[in-house]
Amino acid sequence: MTASKHDPYRLYLTEDQIPKAWYNLRADMPEKPEPMRLPNGAVATKPDIAPVFADALIDQELDDDTPYFDIPEPVLEMYKVYRPSPLCRAYNLERALDTPAKIFYKFEGNNTSGSHKLNSAIAQAYYAYAQGITNITTETGAGQWGTALAEAAAHYGLDLDIFMVKCSYEQKPFRRNIMETFDARVTPSPSDTTEVGRRILAQDPGSSGSLGTAISEAVERALHVPENRGRYQLGSVLNQVVLHQSIIGLESYEALRELGEYPDVVIGCAGGGSNLGGLIAPFMRDKLTGARPATRFIAVEPASCPSLTRGRYAYDFADTGQTCPLCKMYTLGNGFIPNPDHAGGLRYHGMSPIVSKLKHDGYLDAVAVRQTDVFAAAERFAKLETILPAPESAHAILVAMREAERCRETGEAKTILFGLTGTGYFDMVAYDKFNRGELEDHIPTDEELERGFATIPSIPGIQ
Amino acid sequence: MTASKHDPYRLYLTEDQIPKAWYNLRADMPEKPEPMRLPNGAVATKPDIAPVFADALIDQELDDDTPYFDIPEPVLEMYKVYRPSPLCRAYNLERALDTPAKIFYKFEGNNTSGSHKLNSAIAQAYYAYAQGITNITTETGAGQWGTALAEAAAHYGLDLDIFMVKCSYEQKPFRRNIMETFDARVTPSPSDTTEVGRRILAQDPGSSGSLGTAISEAVERALHVPENRGRYQLGSVLNQVVLHQSIIGLESYEALRELGEYPDVVIGCAGGGSNLGGLIAPFMRDKLTGARPATRFIAVEPASCPSLTRGRYAYDFADTGQTCPLCKMYTLGNGFIPNPDHAGGLRYHGMSPIVSKLKHDGYLDAVAVRQTDVFAAAERFAKLETILPAPESAHAILVAMREAERCRETGEAKTILFGLTGTGYFDMVAYDKFNRGELEDHIPTDEELERGFATIPSIPGIQ
Repeated sequence: MTASKHDPYRLYLTEDQIPKAWYNLRADMPEKPEPMRLPNGAVATKPDIAPVFADALIDQELDDDTPYFDIPEPVLEMYKVYRPSPLCRAYNLERALDTPAKIFYKFEGNNTSGSHKLNSAIAQAYYAYAQGITNITTETGAGQWGTALAEAAAHYGLDLDIFMVKCSYEQKPFRRNIMETFDARVTPSPSDTTEVGRRILAQDPGSSGSLGTAISEAVERALHVPENRGRYQLGSVLNQVVLHQSIIGLESYEALRELGEYPDVVIGCAGGGSNLGGLIAPFMRDKLTGARPATRFIAVEPASCPSLTRGRYAYDFADTGQTCPLCKMYTLGNGFIPNPDHAGGLRYHGMSPIVSKLKHDGYLDAVAVRQTDVFAAAERFAKLETILPAPESAHAILVAMREAERCRETGEAKTILFGLTGTGYFDMVAYDKFNRGELEDHIPTDEELERGFATIPSIPGIQ
Repeated sequence: MTASKHDPYRLYLTEDQIPKAWYNLRADMPEKPEPMRLPNGAVATKPDIAPVFADALIDQELDDDTPYFDIPEPVLEMYKVYRPSPLCRAYNLERALDTPAKIFYKFEGNNTSGSHKLNSAIAQAYYAYAQGITNITTETGAGQWGTALAEAAAHYGLDLDIFMVKCSYEQKPFRRNIMETFDARVTPSPSDTTEVGRRILAQDPGSSGSLGTAISEAVERALHVPENRGRYQLGSVLNQVVLHQSIIGLESYEALRELGEYPDVVIGCAGGGSNLGGLIAPFMRDKLTGARPATRFIAVEPASCPSLTRGRYAYDFADTGQTCPLCKMYTLGNGFIPNPDHAGGLRYHGMSPIVSKLKHDGYLDAVAVRQTDVFAAAERFAKLETILPAPESAHAILVAMREAERCRETGEAKTILFGLTGTGYFDMVAYDKFNRGELEDHIPTDEELERGFATIPSIPGIQ
């Protein structure tokens, strides 16, 4: 395959080229991620988690060996409504940086959820629907996942309860409105509608909430739906979500192949790790199998919530209420809550076990960046490339720009691929703060981190 | 050309297929739109309006004969950053309506301005930049045009002053923020920073503003830039804007040709008429030249601002301050201001002279719809097609749905094309009002219309 004379600004694959199966990176990992465990240390089995997750999703969650999972026809039909997403060549950015590097980005923001989250939301809602589930529940922070699941639930006629982190609920009424427009019920978390919410409010009546708390509430709500017809759904972290998001990487891989390109560096922002895990999947396969051993992978996280760069690799609860199973992952402790002034998203205490394992085994680098630098990169990018990015996505932009600037110094014509996960239309309060010079960085002190680490449980015989 | 076996959900032309020239529908109109005139009745010439508009744009504005204008290379380069836009087949909507009709829509919302406005903004900013202009000014209502021009001005390094209708400025702070993120200066209108603004405030200190007033302020500001280096730019109504927006129709035409389709009905929302005029351009050419005489064209406007269906076809000022030249158009009178409760956009008192002439000569139908029906259609569409539409765009959706339902009754398998001009991310206050049952329709009474008509000037020897 030779390079084309001129890469288009935006390359759209045809509908026929949308992948027909998700790729399960675990199948090609020489060492598998550690299994999910129950608080007593036992490895979680399908019956253990069947009340919480839809059956087909559990099969995907627990399967470390099957390399491909067919995308069900109805899910593929919905993918066709907004996919393929474009692979973009950032010519304007390249010119402005005066770099010999080629910069590509996979843009997932061209759907109403405004982000890549819809890829997994459609899959999860479909499997629940196909199983006869009537009610699903979830949590949302910034609101991208909640919007995506609201869209998917509306499509399959599912009743949806969303617990929205209280500070976001108050700061982002429009996010709430859009979820309500798709008929979801949105409750600020912690709330007095669940036992765990009431417990947390009793301890701290003024709590502004956290993703971990909202997860606890959503799980409890799902378990209380009569006749076992409720299930909980999560927008990141889980293996199943990384699996669904592999569509990002698979399409990127195919589009680059058409252009005769292969990335030297793949960069993604990392909150729970689903976008990153999905984007890198087929490229990481090539690294793990030895086909392309030199590719570099960079996870970019906020310095205010630095799980990969300053966290511990340990079993921890997925939720603050400590009601969920435990995952082996880089974690700041389920009790860690980033400073509420942190506007840049990616606020989860833990990290996808797949991404964590790759980092731990040396296949993936991680870097933490300051949100003031992130917003400056976001605005520069917006003016050049005409897309106002989500603050989350702008973490990847910043590091891609730094990489390209390094190429200017060294003269290397590297091919850089990064994930532009979404748009920032609902983040204007943060942009406005940045423009007024009021955005600050809150880097946790070692003491603050220690307080978070203290909430990581010890499990007899395991850790 | 035979129809393909399966139309894709979204058809993207390739970059090479982006049109290289805009199409000037006036060249094929058997009777031309009436010329722009000065208040004394004289036909406006290039020297008359040269202080206000960039030279190349005036050439486009006044030229009724040249069928194609080459798109300058730098404009084409910027188009490539976000174009071609997809031609979508609304399969989900078709199934839900159980209609034999095929419904296509051209979706212009996949760029950060959130609408088709960027197509003309890039062109206008480029021509000003190429002429050595340093400062541009404009008005914005809902904010789509302001956002688009802010993006374009940032790209060409132009200083941009935006006068934003005061009620929008207050209700849509995020719109303001996004324009400021692209370095535009945003002033609520009427303001005390211009003579015309002060005059209007003296008459009505509590004025919530209007597009017509904001235009007056923006023109005055442009004329006061030293050394003749300021120009005013307008996002709709003008012939030049309809010309630039022909890119929508040209791409739609080519994409439908690839599918072996031709629309029986073309539907667009109409505020100032630029999206409608651009969408219909090549199809209307085929009607005017007799190649496709049967195609129907439907302009959809809000019942609360019904220029095409209840307005007068007369010369009127483009602005409330009566400082601009006059256009022959369907108008409610430059003093007409729709009820501030009207949330559905499309609030301009007049209409593109091209669209007006086509309507007047019987080539185009117009229909006025209620905003409560519009929002209901918008939500139904969002749940089926996963795009939350701008309220403006949803006017076209509603009428396309009605047309498809009529096909269900008659059994006709019509091909329907409508323009989905943008997304509704910045309209959540209106959606929320609708969801709470608080959105009402304010249809102007005949007396209210008469008060507007009274502001249409009489011009000796002309009208």
